[in-house]
Amino acid sequence: MTRVAVVGGGQLARMMAPAATAMGVTLRVLVESTEASAALAAHETVVGLPGDADAIRSLLAEPRPDVITWEHEHIPLEVFALAAEMGVAARPGASALLFARDKIAMRERLDSLGLPMPAWRTVETEDEVEAFLAVHGGVGVLKTSMGGYDGKGVRIVRNPAEVDDWLAAAADGGPPLLIEEKVAYDREVAIQVARRPSGEMRAWPLVESIQVDGVCAEVIAPAPELSSALQAEAERIGRLVATELDVTGVLAVEMFDVGGRLLINELAMRPHNSGHWSIEGSVTSQFEQHLRAVLDWPLGDTSTLAPVTVMANVLGGSREDLATAWPGVADPSVKVHLYGKGVRTGRKVGHVTCMGQRVDDVRRRAAEAADWIRDGGAA
Amino acid sequence: MTRVAVVGGGQLARMMAPAATAMGVTLRVLVESTEASAALAAHETVVGLPGDADAIRSLLAEPRPDVITWEHEHIPLEVFALAAEMGVAARPGASALLFARDKIAMRERLDSLGLPMPAWRTVETEDEVEAFLAVHGGVGVLKTSMGGYDGKGVRIVRNPAEVDDWLAAAADGGPPLLIEEKVAYDREVAIQVARRPSGEMRAWPLVESIQVDGVCAEVIAPAPELSSALQAEAERIGRLVATELDVTGVLAVEMFDVGGRLLINELAMRPHNSGHWSIEGSVTSQFEQHLRAVLDWPLGDTSTLAPVTVMANVLGGSREDLATAWPGVADPSVKVHLYGKGVRTGRKVGHVTCMGQRVDDVRRRAAEAADWIRDGGAA
Repeated sequence: MTRVAVVGGGQLARMMAPAATAMGVTLRVLVESTEASAALAAHETVVGLPGDADAIRSLLAEPRPDVITWEHEHIPLEVFALAAEMGVAARPGASALLFARDKIAMRERLDSLGLPMPAWRTVETEDEVEAFLAVHGGVGVLKTSMGGYDGKGVRIVRNPAEVDDWLAAAADGGPPLLIEEKVAYDREVAIQVARRPSGEMRAWPLVESIQVDGVCAEVIAPAPELSSALQAEAERIGRLVATELDVTGVLAVEMFDVGGRLLINELAMRPHNSGHWSIEGSVTSQFEQHLRAVLDWPLGDTSTLAPVTVMANVLGGSREDLATAWPGVADPSVKVHLYGKGVRTGRKVGHVTCMGQRVDDVRRRAAEAADWIRDGGAA
Repeated sequence: MTRVAVVGGGQLARMMAPAATAMGVTLRVLVESTEASAALAAHETVVGLPGDADAIRSLLAEPRPDVITWEHEHIPLEVFALAAEMGVAARPGASALLFARDKIAMRERLDSLGLPMPAWRTVETEDEVEAFLAVHGGVGVLKTSMGGYDGKGVRIVRNPAEVDDWLAAAADGGPPLLIEEKVAYDREVAIQVARRPSGEMRAWPLVESIQVDGVCAEVIAPAPELSSALQAEAERIGRLVATELDVTGVLAVEMFDVGGRLLINELAMRPHNSGHWSIEGSVTSQFEQHLRAVLDWPLGDTSTLAPVTVMANVLGGSREDLATAWPGVADPSVKVHLYGKGVRTGRKVGHVTCMGQRVDDVRRRAAEAADWIRDGGAA
């Protein structure tokens, strides 16, 4: 019997369950409540928070999991210590996960590897912000080193005085800040690479992600007009990051594409929104692959099953009961994934996937379905 | 909130769970024990047997399911009565299900619809068997009208004296018998059609099923060299059966292909082994479609995603712990589905699916993987 423990009860853990079932893997999930997204689908649930040692002990109790993994990066070090004490492999490990949680540590490490990134520096004072802006066209992107997601913890800055509050918060013991050049990119892209402890790696095609207000709205796989040179460069980056940072499981590298030059924006060490398309669009989904990788099993084929796959997020809108409404979607080829989460404006509550031959056609179908589920066309 | 109750804890209920999760449907399953195949994946479980009224009441209790459905045909009439009493729609209904449970009732009904079948008659005596054999080349297929599956309840007969025991059992209150001509078919095929109460129907392509010792070993989708005329005839039969027998959910019609002429062999009113290929091979799997159909939701697209999809059953062999062994399958493109069932020789304990361009290549890959999982190549 093989058993995987997962910390985090969101949609990422929820979507691991079907792959686990098919592979004969029992999935035990730490959920924050019985109403959590993953609670419906998990094979076994433990209710608690990652910081609750008793909950972690229950998660790791007999019958003991073979491995513990995460659906987010905010894992207290005590969890790793408990896993080690109880003899359960923790993947990815604490040293790798740090680079997905702390943007300053990540930038420093990637710099040391010579990987391409936007210009950046840490900042503590208005003078430092001003100095950075002076040499980067008068505009920058200020980020908290930790705790940001979906556009939170990120601000465009043109005048140091605008960000007084964040500088003060950092000086007052809040997360340190970094500033990055505001890249004039052509598009945002992401590569996903899976790596197992024994070293085998597999990458999916580079995808384009379309962000609206800092939140992923749409992913096109493969990225339109993807050259073999760009795919090779993306894979080189992904494989180097995975190897050098000792990532196990699925790694997502979000990047800017500037005329064919790739600059690393963010890292995620888990299944990621940019890979949801793979549930239908690839022979092996990111969720199956993550489980295979953390179990140190041979990785699955990452070939695509259609010329174009498009994933569109369903963000919270005016409609509340999505599970009752969605069957009204007119297009019978749309694949719908609901997360069972309460609807709040802009919250990721589900996604849809469409496959086909032509990018514009598939994008239109996916967007229409996602919009319709969100609000019935009322927006 | 939408909730579906399922009677039966085997792999068919287990494989409904991923589709239910994605669609935001809560799946409550009546399982015979907590070790049942479906128990791992079901969102809610009730332990009991279909004949246990208290268990059925629990299955139908608040929060009340929208519909109750089945993963096998052996549903006591009391279950339908309880469902009606508790205001839960039962799909497919008792009158439809009878024709999937009772081969004599099925043959009589299909005769009345003018549908093509092997010659047949009910038999109670050696003389009746002899008379039938005399006009059908001296050989026939004797079947019990109820309770047979996977080759059980079926005997080839050339001499009436050989089947004395069955005739005696039938005379003694056992299930009545029928005899059918032994058709010299070219291949066995199956069509699956989904039908919702409001009448909408969708069919998948006709598939070829390869049986070994009366048990399905392999399914090729679509059936090789499938002409549009044969597909049309298969769909005509499937749609007519679904409509006239008032089937809701997924219907499988197993048939003999005799030089392009189709003769109906068996009916199943639920997801069926001949449709497992659709999990990966079709835009909409039979499991998702069954749930949509019994909920009276719009049906999904049944297009295929590859020129050829092959499903091969993993039958019980010398290997016991499949869940630990299967990752050794060499081919990374093989999709593995384990059922979490104890291994017994010849028992269906899982299946694999492969997709590709050429029938012979895809069949070889699927068979190699299934054999390897079964016994590691030791057989």
